[in-house]
This record gives sequence, C-alpha cells and structure tokens, in this order.
Amino acid sequence: MRRVAVIGAGMIKFGELFDKGYKDMVQEAYLKCLESVDKGIEPRDIEAGWLGCYYETDGQTTGLVADHLGLLEIPWTRVENACASGGDAIRNAFLAVASGYYDVVLVVGAEKMRDVPTNMFGWKATEKSRDFIWDYPIGITGAANFAMHAVRHMHEYGTTKEQMALVAVKNHKYGAKYPYAHFRREITVEDVLRSPMVAYPFSLLDCCPQTDGAAAVILAAEEVARKFTDTPVFIAGASTGQDRCMHMEKEDMACFPSTIRAARRAYKMAGVENPAREIDVAELHDCFTATEIITYEDLGFCKRGEGGKFIEEGQSELGGLVPCNLSGGLKAKGHPIGATGVAQCAEIFWQLRGEAHVQAEGAEVGTHA
Amino acid sequence: MRRVAVIGAGMIKFGELFDKGYKDMVQEAYLKCLESVDKGIEPRDIEAGWLGCYYETDGQTTGLVADHLGLLEIPWTRVENACASGGDAIRNAFLAVASGYYDVVLVVGAEKMRDVPTNMFGWKATEKSRDFIWDYPIGITGAANFAMHAVRHMHEYGTTKEQMALVAVKNHKYGAKYPYAHFRREITVEDVLRSPMVAYPFSLLDCCPQTDGAAAVILAAEEVARKFTDTPVFIAGASTGQDRCMHMEKEDMACFPSTIRAARRAYKMAGVENPAREIDVAELHDCFTATEIITYEDLGFCKRGEGGKFIEEGQSELGGLVPCNLSGGLKAKGHPIGATGVAQCAEIFWQLRGEAHVQAEGAEVGTHA
Repeated sequence: MRRVAVIGAGMIKFGELFDKGYKDMVQEAYLKCLESVDKGIEPRDIEAGWLGCYYETDGQTTGLVADHLGLLEIPWTRVENACASGGDAIRNAFLAVASGYYDVVLVVGAEKMRDVPTNMFGWKATEKSRDFIWDYPIGITGAANFAMHAVRHMHEYGTTKEQMALVAVKNHKYGAKYPYAHFRREITVEDVLRSPMVAYPFSLLDCCPQTDGAAAVILAAEEVARKFTDTPVFIAGASTGQDRCMHMEKEDMACFPSTIRAARRAYKMAGVENPAREIDVAELHDCFTATEIITYEDLGFCKRGEGGKFIEEGQSELGGLVPCNLSGGLKAKGHPIGATGVAQCAEIFWQLRGEAHVQAEGAEVGTHA
Repeated sequence: MRRVAVIGAGMIKFGELFDKGYKDMVQEAYLKCLESVDKGIEPRDIEAGWLGCYYETDGQTTGLVADHLGLLEIPWTRVENACASGGDAIRNAFLAVASGYYDVVLVVGAEKMRDVPTNMFGWKATEKSRDFIWDYPIGITGAANFAMHAVRHMHEYGTTKEQMALVAVKNHKYGAKYPYAHFRREITVEDVLRSPMVAYPFSLLDCCPQTDGAAAVILAAEEVARKFTDTPVFIAGASTGQDRCMHMEKEDMACFPSTIRAARRAYKMAGVENPAREIDVAELHDCFTATEIITYEDLGFCKRGEGGKFIEEGQSELGGLVPCNLSGGLKAKGHPIGATGVAQCAEIFWQLRGEAHVQAEGAEVGTHA
C-alpha cells in the first residue's frame, strides 16, 4: 500500500457555539484547513471527502456538508463510530488514498452538542452509545458507564480520586494555553474534589464538557504530498476496536479491550514495538479523568495498574515519558464527538511539525486514541 | 490498486419483520453469507467489517453488530449515506481491500423500518434526508420530494403516469418470483392508477414500502479470492455522488445530478464507455416509479427524456436492452435503507454467476445504483 501523509489541518475554537450551526462550523474548519497548506491547495485538488459525525447534522449529513463547502463534484462518506467517529473517518480516508485511487482527500469532523433538543441529545446519546435492551433502560449514562470502569480500576489497583483529579488539573493547565479550547482556565486538585458528585467516583470536574466544535485535515499520497508542503506528516498505522456491548457481558472492566485491540493492530501496522519509548507525544481519550489513566495502560505507556502512578510521577506531562493531551484533551478542549478524532489528528500533525501551542520538543512520533 | 472481488452474498426475506430485531436480521444475513462461500470460509478469515445503516440499530451501531456476530477482534466502521448507505459501505470496504492492507472483509447492511416509534421514523426520516432549515419545515417528505422531480420530468418530456405504473408492474412481476421480496404478488397498471393518491403523481403503488431487511457480502483481494470460490465477481468501479441539498437550489429537477456524477466516476474507473451496450443487468433505485425512469437516463441506458419510452418498449424487462430490478427492486423487494445497496450488490453477484432467481441469461457486466 502507498504511504499517506497529513498535509494540512484546521480547527475552530471549541465551546458552546450558540451562534453557529453545523454548516458554519464545518465551513470554518475547512477553510482554515485549506489555508494551512504551506504551498497552497485549491478545492479542485480534493478528490473525495469523509465526514466524522456521531449524532446528526442540520439535515442530510453528507449532502449538506458537500453542498455547503461547494464540494459537490466529489464523493462523500459519513462515518459514525461513536466517540471514534472522527478517527475512523480518517482511517477510511487513509486506506482509500493508500489504495492508489485517490491522491488528495479531505476529512472533516464536527458535532453540535449544545442547542439541540434534549430528546435528540440527553437520553438519545445514551441510547445510541449502548444496547437499548439492557444498559439503556437501567440508566447507564456516559458518566455512569465510565464510572463503573473507574471503580473497578480503584478496586483492583488502588487508583485514587486524587490521581484522577491530577488528570483534570494537567489538562486544564494545557487547555489554558490552547486557543481552540472550550475551557481556558487552570484548576486545582481541590477544585476537582470539591466539585459536585456526578457519578461516583466522578465529580463534575472529572467530566469533559458538552462542546460544539469542528476540525479538518487533508491527506495526500506520498507521490504528491510535497507538491503541497515540505513537511508532510506520514500516517504509519490506524485501526479501530470493539468490545462486548453490554456491561454485564464485559469480561474485564479495568481496561478497555477495544482500545487494546485497536492499538495492537495500529502498532503492528506502524512497526511500533515499545510504545512508551517510541512514541513522543499523544492525544488520548479523557472523556472522564479515569479514562485517561486506563488509556495510558491500554496504549502500553505504562504497565497495567500503574496508570495512577504514571500521572502522579508526571510521566504524561511535558517533559515526562509520553506527554499526553497538550491540547487540553477532551477535558479542557472539549469533546464534540465527531470532531474529536480529527482534532486529535490535527494536534499531532502540529506537534510533529514543531508548530504546536504547547510543544513537545523534538517529537517525531505521535499517536491519538 | 489491487483488484477486488465479491466472493459471497447473503440476504434475508425482506418484509415487516415484527418478530426480528436489528441483531437478528444482521446475524441471519451474515450466516447466510458465510454459507454461500463455495469453498468455505471461517469467521477468522474476515479482517474488517463495514455496516451500512441509515437510522439506528438497537444501540451502539458498530459495537452491537460486532458483538452479536462474534467478530470483536476486527475493526468495524458504520457508513451512513442516506439511501446510498449500503452501497457506500461497499465502496469503502472495496477501497480498503484495494489498498493491500486487508485481504478479506465483510459488509453488512441492515435497517429496521417498522416497529420503531414514529418520532424516530416518520418525520425523523424526512428531517434526516434534507435540510432542517427549509425543506423539512415546509413538509417535504420522501414522496413529496421525488414527486416534484417526477412532475418536472412529465412537464419537460411528456412522461406519463401510465409509464410510471409500468415500472411498478414490472418490478412486482419479478418480485413475485423473488424469495426475499417483501411483496410477492403481481399488480396491473389499473391497480396502480386506482390506488390512493399519496403525492401527485405518485399513487400508493408508485411508492416502495417501508420494509425491514438485511444483506451481507464478503469482498476479497484477487490474490486470495480463488481460495474461497472459483467464480469470484470482480468490482470494476464504484463511486457516490452529491447534489444541492435544498430543492430551491437545485439547478435541474428532471434528473438526479448525484446519480450522474457517481455513474460518470464509476464508469471511468471501470472503463465503461457505452453503458447501454456494455451493461447486461442492473439493480437501480426505484424508491418511487419515476425514480427508476429518471435513473435509466442518469445511468446512460437511454437518452435524456426517453426513460418513459424505455420502460414502454420493454427495454428494462428481461430480454430488453438492460434488464433492471429483476429482484423486484425497492418497489417489490422493499427498501430497508442501509441494506438496499448491499442487497443490490448481492443480486448482481448472483446475476453475474448465473445463479439469480430471475436470471438475465449470459450477463457478464452488471451495475447497481
């Protein structure tokens, strides 16, 4: 298969964007992405489009986006894969370019999480993220779901609420310096511990916000990438993963088998054998603070059960073993679901070009999960 | 890019399947698909999965399907692309195999159109299929939308309600012989003309039914295809297309520019220059009778404006220039949206292997749209 690179990236300011519709967000991210291409790119250079979107757009997903961006002469695909929607849109686009059929393609991710009716969001979100038959009727919301994983991790490994709070403190520290972040203020461990309880062990400040946002990246085949930039960032591997759907059937609650499976395949594709040593910077899924801790382990940044120690020792901070979420992560930057994976990819692109807002010095290999 | 073939296909009986949930339908189609592979295939041979689904499953789309099929060790993607969801899932899977990364992949398409709450279906469907801002609030349902195209075609080319009725009669004739069809009874032109008006010019029998269903196909790279079957059917080209989203902005109402764009790209990829002469059999989008007539033209089976004559002359019947919808089409077989494109692909696979229920003798090249 051909090598494929990211050659441009754009992101809008994440937040409660009551003044922007889905189309506005997508367009702004797209235009910023076009402008970011060093040697210039024209809309007519783009041969196909992918959209990462979990819920809904303002109407027919692909048609609406294609129409609003003025890109009607290319095929469009919407990928929906829960919180991996944006990342999996990139994976599909990557494989399509690798096939040799397309040379230059666009991936946009966007989600409107605010100002949608409660019946479309609140319970609807939970309904979509689990199995209607069991988890949904018994009330397993996003927070309740991840809280059960967190409690199991505490039980098995002695992970503490203070260690979880450190994740929030770290990500807010970086988010405060990140122009696109939803929350741009620092918080303390005490702030987290004193914030109202949502679902034990998660207090309010353990939870990522509900955020509107959009991001876009352009991928190009190696053969043409340098027509557009002298510093393309190559994609070495990509995958997605699955686990049992209902909690009562999950065999292991103290890890995310889906992440482990996806990482194993992506690392194999990329030839990564020792992720903790080979990966210089990461954007990873901190929808709740404990999720980040468990994901350190699932991605092989530390041994199983040592995620709490990993954050406590500062290994995921700038200067640590693998700096994580220097963008503020989902916790401070926000988690507009379909946009999240695309925004993570954009941030890793900037990190590996030395252009990030909070830069991991000399980073040459990055990942997002 | 590598050549990619279909090596197996399965389909369930379409209909109002009040006794089956989403998972049941998907599993049945998958098992039939596995069984259809001549030399046998094991679940462990499958390296990745795609799901075509427009609305929703019983919960988290990819997770639920992966879990229920026992295929948790592979990555899964859901593709949503309105009525092209199933076909575009195949396109993404095709490109992924063409890339050289996967050798054998599964595509499942399924949709539950019945026994879902009205708020999830009725208006929700319309809301999803257009732009919220304009078409949706003024009441453009599926039937009203296509009716406007039909009326324009009547105005410009003199297409008649009788010609439209002939499409329904033809597709019911073939559907009556098709074991998987929702409606297995023949109808007459009089039946169509006398059925209650839905949205002029469409009477009830001009409209496809709301049908539950599922279908599955397995794709394999040329290098491995003959390990599984001596009669693989190769995919020569694939694309999708877009047009303006809102009706007030459409430049041409007497054709579907999205179909024309998709066909142009797919024909180019496949090296098809004269579709009417080179294509032996087709499954195409007869969600309403006039849609089939307009699609004859958009796919180049006849000249523009001559779609009415094409059906009248029997050119889309068995023995005609391009036999269309020998499965009964959406009109008689049914239109479970995410399943439709996958079921069309399955039918063309059977046609090109000489195994179809209503066989186009000697068919060597087929298409679905």
